[in-house]
Order: sequence, then C-alpha cells, then structure tokens
Amino acid sequence: MANKHLKIRIYNGGTVAMGPGKAELLETIDTCGSISSAAKQMQMSYRRAWELVDVMNKCFNQPVVTSASGGQHGGGAHLTDFGRFILKSYRDLVVKAQLATELELNQILSNLNQSE
Amino acid sequence: MANKHLKIRIYNGGTVAMGPGKAELLETIDTCGSISSAAKQMQMSYRRAWELVDVMNKCFNQPVVTSASGGQHGGGAHLTDFGRFILKSYRDLVVKAQLATELELNQILSNLNQSE
Repeated sequence: MANKHLKIRIYNGGTVAMGPGKAELLETIDTCGSISSAAKQMQMSYRRAWELVDVMNKCFNQPVVTSASGGQHGGGAHLTDFGRFILKSYRDLVVKAQLATELELNQILSNLNQSE
Repeated sequence: MANKHLKIRIYNGGTVAMGPGKAELLETIDTCGSISSAAKQMQMSYRRAWELVDVMNKCFNQPVVTSASGGQHGGGAHLTDFGRFILKSYRDLVVKAQLATELELNQILSNLNQSE
C-alpha cells in the first residue's frame, strides 16, 4: 500500500536522476532486452523511453544502459553493472524509507479522502 | 545536501497530497498569515497558491488551511491544527527517510555528474 502513495525521486539539479518511473523502465529493459520492447510493455513511446534512458545516462558519471547498434530501434539494450547497482541502491532506499517512516506515513494516509 | 536531492511526495491517487512545494507553502502561509502574501514571497501567482491549498484541502478529510472572508484576496489565512499536524508528520517523515537511507542515497549521489 505504502508503495503506491509514497514516491521518492532523486534529483540532479532540476532533473530527476532516479525515481519510480525510471526504475521501472530499467527493470523492464532488463527483462525485455531492448528499449523498444520495454517501451511497448510500459505503453510509452520509444522516443519517450529513449529520452528517459538518455537523461539517466547523462545524469550519472557512467551509463546505466548500453545499446547495441543496428536497425531503426537499435539492436537491443541492457543494463550495465553500474545500472544494476544504481537500481538496487534506489530500490533499497525506497524500502528503507518506507520502513523508517511507517508511523508518519500512516498519520498522513489515514487522513486522506478515498481517491480510488 | 540530501534535502536538495531527495524529494518525497505523498500521493492520493494521481494527486500530490503533500510534497516539498506544498509543505513550503504551508510554512509560508503560517509565517505570512495570508495566501496572497505567501504567494508573493514564494514568487508564485495568487491563483497557483490558492489552487495548491485547494488541492490539499480536498485531498484530506479536514482542511489544512482556513481563510477569513473579505477583499479580493481574502482577509487572511492560517493553518488549522490539523494542517500543522500533517505538516509536522511530513517533515518528520522526510527527516527519518533521509537518516534511514544515508548509505543508499550516497551511493547514488556520489555517482551523479555535477549539475550546479
């Protein structure tokens, strides 16, 4: 439940370097083996997925995803070891934050009107 | 430093019920005693500030801000006790999350390119 309500984003200046959407995209690229398949599965445009990967690759001092060349939509993409490390750090961060803030989160969530 | 990079938002469905901007607005209304003065200090339009307050008041089962009537921009506004409670819960949540995730946050931040 908490996961749906608590969203944590890591900023590099005004740019989101890592957040729920980018983490999900990395996981989907890891599963699908290409940016275009991941985009399709996440129901976003290839252009949008490519841009999100590009933002991450530029935010960090090493690439999180590498693409093989070839074809209009490239010849496949995979997470680098560094990308896996950053993704794991973010996922661990979210879990630890949720565990540490259970009291305060419930104080807020229990006073929300039902929205869905 | 962490505060600038780690941003936590609490969602009610697709709507941000509480986050860095809304918390700052509540604190500024508390200091200034009106939505229009708070908007001015935060360099946002009165309309935008009013809308953010309205979103919060609709997200929660009690108002976080009450406005006195009178004049085009109302006769002053103040945080309710409930608003103070939610604001404190959110601020505590952010501090606890930062403390609990120091390791992971540093793993991510230390690999960001300098952006500013």
